[in-house]
Amino acid sequence: MAGGMERERTGGSPGPVGPGAGGARGDEPAPAGSGSEAAPAHGAAAAKGWEEQLARAVAAGEAEAAVRLAAEVHPADLAEFVLKMPAEARSRLLAWLPPEQAAQVVEELPAAVQSEVLAVLGRRRAGAVLEEMSSDEVADLLGELPPQRAVDLLGLLQEDEAADVRSLLAYLDDTAGGLMTTEFVALQDDLTAAEAIDALRRLAPDAETIYYVYVVDREERLQGVLSLRELIVAPPETPIRQIMRTRVVTVPPDMDQEEVARVVAKYDLLAVPVVDGAGRILGIVTVDDVVDVLEEEASEDIYRLTATPHGVAAAGSPWLRARLRLPWLVGLLLGELVVAKVIQGFEGTLERVAQLAYFIPLLAATAGNVGTQSLATAVRGLATGEIARGQAPRVLLRELQVGLLLAVALAATSAVLVYAVLGDGPVAVTVGVAMGVNTLVAAAIGVLVPLALHWLRVDPAVASGPFVTTTLDVVGTLVYFLTATWLLFRAAG
Amino acid sequence: MAGGMERERTGGSPGPVGPGAGGARGDEPAPAGSGSEAAPAHGAAAAKGWEEQLARAVAAGEAEAAVRLAAEVHPADLAEFVLKMPAEARSRLLAWLPPEQAAQVVEELPAAVQSEVLAVLGRRRAGAVLEEMSSDEVADLLGELPPQRAVDLLGLLQEDEAADVRSLLAYLDDTAGGLMTTEFVALQDDLTAAEAIDALRRLAPDAETIYYVYVVDREERLQGVLSLRELIVAPPETPIRQIMRTRVVTVPPDMDQEEVARVVAKYDLLAVPVVDGAGRILGIVTVDDVVDVLEEEASEDIYRLTATPHGVAAAGSPWLRARLRLPWLVGLLLGELVVAKVIQGFEGTLERVAQLAYFIPLLAATAGNVGTQSLATAVRGLATGEIARGQAPRVLLRELQVGLLLAVALAATSAVLVYAVLGDGPVAVTVGVAMGVNTLVAAAIGVLVPLALHWLRVDPAVASGPFVTTTLDVVGTLVYFLTATWLLFRAAG
Repeated sequence: MAGGMERERTGGSPGPVGPGAGGARGDEPAPAGSGSEAAPAHGAAAAKGWEEQLARAVAAGEAEAAVRLAAEVHPADLAEFVLKMPAEARSRLLAWLPPEQAAQVVEELPAAVQSEVLAVLGRRRAGAVLEEMSSDEVADLLGELPPQRAVDLLGLLQEDEAADVRSLLAYLDDTAGGLMTTEFVALQDDLTAAEAIDALRRLAPDAETIYYVYVVDREERLQGVLSLRELIVAPPETPIRQIMRTRVVTVPPDMDQEEVARVVAKYDLLAVPVVDGAGRILGIVTVDDVVDVLEEEASEDIYRLTATPHGVAAAGSPWLRARLRLPWLVGLLLGELVVAKVIQGFEGTLERVAQLAYFIPLLAATAGNVGTQSLATAVRGLATGEIARGQAPRVLLRELQVGLLLAVALAATSAVLVYAVLGDGPVAVTVGVAMGVNTLVAAAIGVLVPLALHWLRVDPAVASGPFVTTTLDVVGTLVYFLTATWLLFRAAG
Repeated sequence: MAGGMERERTGGSPGPVGPGAGGARGDEPAPAGSGSEAAPAHGAAAAKGWEEQLARAVAAGEAEAAVRLAAEVHPADLAEFVLKMPAEARSRLLAWLPPEQAAQVVEELPAAVQSEVLAVLGRRRAGAVLEEMSSDEVADLLGELPPQRAVDLLGLLQEDEAADVRSLLAYLDDTAGGLMTTEFVALQDDLTAAEAIDALRRLAPDAETIYYVYVVDREERLQGVLSLRELIVAPPETPIRQIMRTRVVTVPPDMDQEEVARVVAKYDLLAVPVVDGAGRILGIVTVDDVVDVLEEEASEDIYRLTATPHGVAAAGSPWLRARLRLPWLVGLLLGELVVAKVIQGFEGTLERVAQLAYFIPLLAATAGNVGTQSLATAVRGLATGEIARGQAPRVLLRELQVGLLLAVALAATSAVLVYAVLGDGPVAVTVGVAMGVNTLVAAAIGVLVPLALHWLRVDPAVASGPFVTTTLDVVGTLVYFLTATWLLFRAAG
């Protein structure tokens, strides 16, 4: 943690400038969950004994024993354990822990629990914990709180930490600015390698992490980047300006977090600097945050594609879960009521050829399946960057070709199958024709909707599968009965 | 790249042992795609000019100009560019590039293109490129080739590199062993800090990356871990045994890659060592590979949930895409044919109350939507580790409670709506009752299937949404017409 770090942001002075150093998460070779010495700990699997002991110590009010036990446990494991505790025991344990460790645990907790814990901890203690948290985590946390409480907590921080947090609060949550931390190492470009190593010792005395060392000029404009390794290997008197890499991948603060994740993934970076229009470095986005973004965005895509409201997984009670899911289901039900009205509109056709009813689900389901496949391919292609901006016409054309091939194949297959089952030629032909048209329409809509949303700069996953399939149900049923009315009544004279 | 690195695996001798060092991907502060000096390059956005120039140079056969231009470009950008080239031009350019750069580009290409490129490059050149690739990439590539060709290419490698690759080939692709690289730094625990730094200089002369420095005993058993930072800050004469962290998160070689990704994400690691039963370090899995795994697994979940065959996104021609998608669609169509047979079985009921047909899609779609929601929540919960092993009964119970609440709400809503639309009390009641039963069944099946698959240690995403919804269509239609027959004929006398 960058806790008690000195900062020397003295304008034009030579020597290190300190947008800071540290951010212990990330580069720290984490101790295992288990308390065993150097033994392979296979994740947190071997870690069982401490949980019971710690729970007992907390319940018995044995602060010293609890702190001793907790010291052996990785903050991520401790956070998991703490989440399972009753709220009262949770705050008691966090009040006992050293602020630095408490901060590491709090950083791993979900936002709702974070603010609950800080509320109970008392102002002074809360301030000490916040001080030890990295600035991006503090900003995320404060952003979730009522403004007045956020201002109150902000007042507990030291001046420069508070300034950092305040500047981070200005960025939207899901942008590079909202994701970045201000804890990184930036050195003046006129230092030598030896001076730079010295500066690192001084600037980041207890920082575990130095992802990269950034090199800036007197105006804090990014000039280049160094790995720690390059610094060590260079002859001590070499100016770092000569050994740094001058071409650096950077991102602007308003870049969407998904795009930031893509940049980090593409270039296999451990961190990417966020720079403003003037080339000044504002912060860095680290790979551990990118990992979280990727998980979050993947969950979001899946939930949206299945019309599962975001937040259901985290919702505790069945009541809340049901209440979150119900509006989507009722909305979709209204769509299917339109389908019912469409069928009702063809009452006469249905009365004359009752067998038509048998194949309503078959047509609706197949069109839905084709549409969902197209949708998934397009949404995922856009999310991973396989479909780049400007390729939309090409993607659409290809999908239409695929749709045409599928339409021919499915039309023939279904006509043959229906004839085999029913032995009724005209109905088989009707199903086949409607199947062909529906398949083509489904492929087109399935790819058009996400591409259009992307073009409008809306997250394409908003086009959830069930909404597309419900639309296809309406269109498909209409096509089916129109085809039937036309074909059968013509055939029947 | 760990290319020309010396290795000193001499049994019990003091000094560094070298499972290796390097793996340039990962820690290298990547140069920007654009050729501009230190300017913020906002990903690869600013990079346009070089593409045309390079294409022209390759077309004109100007090797020197092409190599000069390519030297300015990040391998990830170059790989993207190379992918868009015709195969012939692609091999020409890769044959011109220095082997190290060619290796970096090849590492970024899809497997199919990799083997195609290596086939064209000629044995000697291919060997030089393979030599420069990291061992895990070479193993992945050889694993995709016909055995004879793999053996042939393996013969081009230097003895120790070949041995590393051979040992990696023994692991399954989607396990920690299949994901790990043998390029890492391991030092003997009796070195001092100064000796360790010296050893690093010697062992990894051109390695850009040192994620962590691992400390091993004479039998190569993992004793602890150090960050480069801790090494620099320590007084030169301190034995590293005294400054290393002795508790290390490790994973076994047969751990599933998704679980490895979860460990790295949970503990915010840059790399996790893979150790065997005896505690010997076999390799490391780096965070950049974890990022790839997360993207891959997210795509897989989405494709499976939508019955989109894996590989469709990568497939080039519409023919191939259609051919991949068709079997799934036909399989699902057969399921819907069963639905048609079910409806046909209730011919008499349908003839007496034709209005029943109007609500077949409504019932089927709603059950499908409920089931898909449950499925998505369970699949994602399992993927992110929110649902841990052993929690299945609790999750199932909660989902059933949610299902019950949804069933009551949807039954009432649909009955009221159907009555409003149709003004027919008995049909409205029939739809309502069937809706209630179907919703409950859908919620249960939606969560039971992935939990059961997880319990059987099969990837829960195999339970693709469309297969669940097709099953629900069959069950739902049966429930609907059974309810109708019972209710209406009772009502009718």
